[in-house]
Amino acid sequence: MKQLNKCIWLAVLMSALLMGGCDKQSEKNSDRLPNLIVVFADDLGYGDLGTYGHPTIQTPNLDRLAEEGAKFTQFYSAASVCTPSRAALLTGRLPVRSGMASNNRRVLFPDSELGLPQDEITIAEALKSSGYATAAIGKWHLGHRPSFLPAQQGFDYYYGIPYSNDMDQVGKGPWSDKFLNPKVEYWNVPLMQNERIIERPADQRTITRRYTEEAIRFIQEHRNEPFFIYLAHSMPHVPLFRSEAFEDVSRRGLYGDVIEEIDWSVGQIMRVLREEGLAGNTLVVFTSDNGPWLAYDTHGGSAGLLRGGKGMTWEGGMREPALAWWPGVIRPGTVVDAVTSTMDLFPTALAMAGLDLPDDRIIDGRNLLPILTDGSQTKIRDTYFYYRGATLYAVRKGPWKAHFVTEWAYTSDNRRTVHDPPLLFHLDRDPSEKYNVAEAHPDVVADIIEIAEQHSASMQPRPTQLDARISGK
Amino acid sequence: MKQLNKCIWLAVLMSALLMGGCDKQSEKNSDRLPNLIVVFADDLGYGDLGTYGHPTIQTPNLDRLAEEGAKFTQFYSAASVCTPSRAALLTGRLPVRSGMASNNRRVLFPDSELGLPQDEITIAEALKSSGYATAAIGKWHLGHRPSFLPAQQGFDYYYGIPYSNDMDQVGKGPWSDKFLNPKVEYWNVPLMQNERIIERPADQRTITRRYTEEAIRFIQEHRNEPFFIYLAHSMPHVPLFRSEAFEDVSRRGLYGDVIEEIDWSVGQIMRVLREEGLAGNTLVVFTSDNGPWLAYDTHGGSAGLLRGGKGMTWEGGMREPALAWWPGVIRPGTVVDAVTSTMDLFPTALAMAGLDLPDDRIIDGRNLLPILTDGSQTKIRDTYFYYRGATLYAVRKGPWKAHFVTEWAYTSDNRRTVHDPPLLFHLDRDPSEKYNVAEAHPDVVADIIEIAEQHSASMQPRPTQLDARISGK
Repeated sequence: MKQLNKCIWLAVLMSALLMGGCDKQSEKNSDRLPNLIVVFADDLGYGDLGTYGHPTIQTPNLDRLAEEGAKFTQFYSAASVCTPSRAALLTGRLPVRSGMASNNRRVLFPDSELGLPQDEITIAEALKSSGYATAAIGKWHLGHRPSFLPAQQGFDYYYGIPYSNDMDQVGKGPWSDKFLNPKVEYWNVPLMQNERIIERPADQRTITRRYTEEAIRFIQEHRNEPFFIYLAHSMPHVPLFRSEAFEDVSRRGLYGDVIEEIDWSVGQIMRVLREEGLAGNTLVVFTSDNGPWLAYDTHGGSAGLLRGGKGMTWEGGMREPALAWWPGVIRPGTVVDAVTSTMDLFPTALAMAGLDLPDDRIIDGRNLLPILTDGSQTKIRDTYFYYRGATLYAVRKGPWKAHFVTEWAYTSDNRRTVHDPPLLFHLDRDPSEKYNVAEAHPDVVADIIEIAEQHSASMQPRPTQLDARISGK
Repeated sequence: MKQLNKCIWLAVLMSALLMGGCDKQSEKNSDRLPNLIVVFADDLGYGDLGTYGHPTIQTPNLDRLAEEGAKFTQFYSAASVCTPSRAALLTGRLPVRSGMASNNRRVLFPDSELGLPQDEITIAEALKSSGYATAAIGKWHLGHRPSFLPAQQGFDYYYGIPYSNDMDQVGKGPWSDKFLNPKVEYWNVPLMQNERIIERPADQRTITRRYTEEAIRFIQEHRNEPFFIYLAHSMPHVPLFRSEAFEDVSRRGLYGDVIEEIDWSVGQIMRVLREEGLAGNTLVVFTSDNGPWLAYDTHGGSAGLLRGGKGMTWEGGMREPALAWWPGVIRPGTVVDAVTSTMDLFPTALAMAGLDLPDDRIIDGRNLLPILTDGSQTKIRDTYFYYRGATLYAVRKGPWKAHFVTEWAYTSDNRRTVHDPPLLFHLDRDPSEKYNVAEAHPDVVADIIEIAEQHSASMQPRPTQLDARISGK
C-alpha cells in the first residue's frame, strides 16, 4: 500500500514538473508537499452552475475552473443532508461508520449533545502529521460543544458558524416571511473564531465575503508551508444572504446573487494562488454537501436533469457539481465520468501528502489522483451506496441503480415507499431516473440485492451520535 | 434601414480584420462576403450537450464551439414541432404568417399536397441575390412535391430526406419493436439528390455521415465564393440510427451515439473550414428545431432543467441549445442570455450579405450580429410568442411568461388546459416553470394579456398549407 502511494505521488510530482514547466510560478513550489483547498457549498444543485447548464446563473470563475481543470459528472456526496455528508467528506467513510447517521435526527441541532467522535480521523488530522497548516472556515455542523469543534479534529484555525444558518430561529413568524424575505435578526446563529463566539447573531449578509477574506489571509500567512483549507460556505442554504456588492446582480434573483458571490469567492482564491505563486502546487476542489432544497421555492436550487433534491436518495439529492483545479497537473478540460465521491477526498489528500491510509478502519473513499493526473477515465469503484439517515435506500452498480426505498423528503406528504422488488434505473442512459427497467433485467436486480445484503451484513455501524440532546433541552 | 445594415456590416468587417489578425488563414477571405452554415438538429433537448450539462453524452466539438464562440441560454425555436419550426428559421417569420401552422395537421406528411409557399423568401433566396452558392443538406419537411422542394426556395443543391425519418412506415409492428429496435427497412423514406430519389428506403444508418460528407464537399467546391449551407440533420429524431463507427460509443446508449456522431460531424466541418482557410470568414450556427420527444423513452432526449418537451409550449419544447462560432469575430466564451430565436437567422444572414430586409412583409427575427460581434448583452426583443399549431398558447415579456393554454402533447392523455387567468412564471428566477406567481403580479398578467390581444388582433395569418392532402390519399 505504501509502495503504491509513493508510486502515485512520484507520478504526480513528475507530471507537475513536466507539465508545470509553462507555469513559471509553479516551479518554485514543486519541492514542497502540495496544498489542498476544498470549497464546499451547502445545498447547491447539480444544475446550478453555468458549466452544468444553468441558463441565468453566471459562474465565470467556476466555469474557468472546469475549463482549466476537471469537471466531474458522477460525483456524489455521501448523504443527502448536511451533518452526515460533512462527516463523510472529512473522514473518507460512510456516515454510518462514524456514528453520524440516524433515522431519528438526521443532522445535529443546537440542542445536540455530541458530534463527530474524536477518534475519527479527519483530513486535517492526517495532514497535520505531515506538517500541514490547517483551517476550517465556514459551516462546521459536526458538533458545536467544545469537545467537538474543529480544534479537536486537527484544525489549527476555525472561523465560521457551528451549525446550519437556519437554526436558532428567533420567533415563529410565517415561513414565507422568514425564509423568503430573510433578515439577519430572525436567526441567532453564532459566528465563532476558534472556540470563541465573536458575533451573535452572525451577520449573514457579509458571511461569504468574510469567509473568503479569511481563506485568503490563511493562504498568504502560510504561503511557505503546505496547507489545507476546508472552506465550507454556509450558502446557498436558506435563509439566503449576500453582501451589498452582489445585491440584484443575478437574473436568477437572490439565489443567483448568492451563487455568483460564491463564484466570485472562488475567483478570488484562484487569483491569490496565482499571485502567490502557489497555483501549480495547490489542488482546489469545489463541490457541495447535498442537492437543492426544493421546498424553498426559488430560494432552493436546481438539480438540472436529475430527479429529486436534498433529503432524497434520488440522484438530485446526492449527485453534485464537482470541479478540480491544479494547473500543470490536471489537464485542462478533463471530464471525469467515473463514479466518484466526497469520500474520495480523504485518501486523495493522504496520497498528496505521501501518507498511508489508516489500517485500523474501513475507508470508503478512493484516491482520485490517478484519474486526475493521467487524464484517463479509470473506473475507481463498482458500487455506490445511497443512505438516508442510517438506512440503505439504494445501491448503484456500474450504470445500474436499484432503489429499495424512495422518499420525497421535505414535501407536503413526505411520501416514503418501500420497493419490493426494487426499482431499477440505468443511470447512464436514463440520468433522470424516469424508466424503471427492473422487469427487463431480473439478473441485475438479483445481483444488486445480493450486493446490498452482503454490504448490510458486513456493516458494523457505530452507535449514532445524532440523537443525544443536552440534558434539560 | 439600409444605412443601419451597412453600418453593422462595416463593424463586422472591421472586427474581423482587427481580431482576425491572429488567424492567418482568415485574412485571405476577409475581402469577401462571409459564409453561413446553419447546423440544425432534430428533436435535440436543451440538456443534451456537455456544455448544457448532460452527464453522459460527450460533445467535445460542440463544447469547443461554445468555448471558442458564443453559447445562447435563451434561444428559441419558433414552434414546438418540425415543419413550422423549419419554415420560421428559413423565412424569419412566425409560422402562422407563412401558412405553415395548423391546428389540424401540425406538420406535413407524405400525403400532404402543399408546402412552403413559393412567394415566401428564404435565407437561400435572399443570399442568392448577393451571389451565394446555396445548399440544403438533410431533412427538408417543407413540401416534398416538385414545386416545394429546396430548388424552388433558392437552393442550388439538395441532398436529403424530404420529410421526417419516421414517416412512410412499412407495416404496423408494435411500437416498442419499431422504434426502440429500429431497422432501416421499417421505413420507406426516400433519399433525394436535387429532385431525384436516389435511394429508398434511405439507409439511415449512414445518413449523418453522408450529410457531413456532402457538406464538406460543398464547402470545398465553393471555397472561392460565398456560400450558405443549411445542414438539417434528420437525427436525433426517432427512429435513431448511427453509422458503424459510432455504435456503442456513448454511455448514454443509442441516443448518445447519435448525438456524438452529430458532434463529430460539427468537428469535421470546423476542421475543413480551418484547413480551407475559411474559418475566419464563416459563421457557423448550431441549434435544433424543437425540444426532445419525451414519449420515446430513452430514445428521446432531455430538456435539462426545463419543463416539457416536443409539441409543448413549456420551455422544454421550444428553448434550444444554440451555439455560434466565427473565429476572430465572436469573442471566445461569449454567453448570450438575450431572448433570441431561430427566426433571427434570416435577418442575420441578410445583414452579413449587406442586404436590406424585404419591406413587403413582416419579419419577426432580429439581426444577431450586434450581439455576437460587440459581445455586449444587448436586448433584442421584449416579447416572445409561443404558438402551438396556429394558436397562441403563451407570451413572454422580459423574464415573465404567461400561459393561456398548456398541453402535454404526445402523452397518454394529451392533456390540454385553458388557463383563465393565465399562469405566470418568472423564467429567469424559475426556469423550470414550477411556481405560478400570477396572483402576486396582477399588473404583469394584465400587461401580457393586452400584449397578446394586440398581437392577435394585428396578426394576419396566411391560410394554412398543412391540411390539404393529395387527392385520392
